[in-house]
Amino acid sequence: MRIYLIVLVLVSVFSSAFAEDSILKYPSEIENMHKRAADEDVDLHCTTWRFAAEMNNLAPWKTIPVECADYVKNYVMGKGYATDLERVSEEAFIFASSVEFSGDGKDIWVFDIDETLLSNLPYYIDHGFGLELFDHSEFDKWVERGVAPAIAPSLKLYQRVIDLGYKVFLLTGRKESHRLVTVENLINAGFQNWDKLILRSPEEQHKMATLYKSEKRDEMVKEGYRIRGNSGDQWSDLLGTSMSQRSFKLANPMYYIP
Amino acid sequence: MRIYLIVLVLVSVFSSAFAEDSILKYPSEIENMHKRAADEDVDLHCTTWRFAAEMNNLAPWKTIPVECADYVKNYVMGKGYATDLERVSEEAFIFASSVEFSGDGKDIWVFDIDETLLSNLPYYIDHGFGLELFDHSEFDKWVERGVAPAIAPSLKLYQRVIDLGYKVFLLTGRKESHRLVTVENLINAGFQNWDKLILRSPEEQHKMATLYKSEKRDEMVKEGYRIRGNSGDQWSDLLGTSMSQRSFKLANPMYYIP
Repeated sequence: MRIYLIVLVLVSVFSSAFAEDSILKYPSEIENMHKRAADEDVDLHCTTWRFAAEMNNLAPWKTIPVECADYVKNYVMGKGYATDLERVSEEAFIFASSVEFSGDGKDIWVFDIDETLLSNLPYYIDHGFGLELFDHSEFDKWVERGVAPAIAPSLKLYQRVIDLGYKVFLLTGRKESHRLVTVENLINAGFQNWDKLILRSPEEQHKMATLYKSEKRDEMVKEGYRIRGNSGDQWSDLLGTSMSQRSFKLANPMYYIP
Repeated sequence: MRIYLIVLVLVSVFSSAFAEDSILKYPSEIENMHKRAADEDVDLHCTTWRFAAEMNNLAPWKTIPVECADYVKNYVMGKGYATDLERVSEEAFIFASSVEFSGDGKDIWVFDIDETLLSNLPYYIDHGFGLELFDHSEFDKWVERGVAPAIAPSLKLYQRVIDLGYKVFLLTGRKESHRLVTVENLINAGFQNWDKLILRSPEEQHKMATLYKSEKRDEMVKEGYRIRGNSGDQWSDLLGTSMSQRSFKLANPMYYIP
């Protein structure tokens, strides 16, 4: 009888383990495999999309692809974005250090502001990481709070190029009416000692960013400045006329400015 | 006796399953976790490196990072590279279709050849995917065999832009003495009906690629051509003077030409 009981217990343990394997675990394993394969497809597709966006290969886009919403969120909130920002800061510094200075104070570094020196990630966390259509008045409210944090690796580069002897020009698509709040925000975030802060005048409000920024760089060159480096998260910060000797493209998979 | 045997069998099956779990599986799971974490670190680091390379943020480089050898191999031999090449072909076609033609035969598309129309992947498979220092004489031997396959999505784009009415100019860093073998290779790979094939003359041999290609584009513009699109795997194909209306950067994580 005791043996019979032991057998019963063992059989029941063994068969329930077996049942779990065949009825519960096995299908969930298959589901997991399918899920992993689907995840890998989305990851591949969205990495390709992100590369195409960053290399300026895409047609102008207004929102990120719906299927890449989680991908973009995970990238900007995770290690990927942080690591990319650190890398571009280091590479820009390597170049900045290699430039031979004339010492006449005409060597400059141009920085864009949004997503280059200051991060609007707190805003985009509340607005789908680029999944929502850009809302000018909502974004203006955020800008006017003046609380955008520094992008730490960019602050490091900023201080390093000033220490190397570059003049720093800030060239932003923000409007002139936001000058004060922008200055306050920059200072609170740790930026100081820039030589020029150039914002859009009312008549420049509707110019394409590439044209507006090119014209401003043209003026710098006319004034005898040598644009050695230019850091921006948009190709419209970097391309056009009077391009910098070297351009540094910071990652930004959340929005596109033509 | 029969019951005793059954118990024995069940106990031995059950305990061996248990032993496998606790003694074999558990430590190998920990090892796997460590391995996965290390793999993820390398993957993150090498993805950041690849982005920095593709966005032209890196200082000139001669070989890929040693720690990214497997990563680059897996990328170019796997789905990643193929998917990226398909995407840039599609995006270029979308732009090409959107251009309004004047019909005077002056709208052109410029293509680079190596890693843009023709793939040297068979060569790089034998040479560490960019891990070895570039060997001019070895690579020349490969070019002279004239067997580089077409990059299929680029062949598709090539045919589509010709069908749309663009003239196609091929602008390559290959030397004039390789004209015949290059023509043969292109034709065998499916390319035909180009309008110009521009190779480096002996006196241009030591010019930087950016300068050489800019001068050639300057000439096109002087002759009245409108460079609507430019496809290349190197930024030296795309940047400089007389830049194209839109540039399309094909992925190439294996080598860098300044």
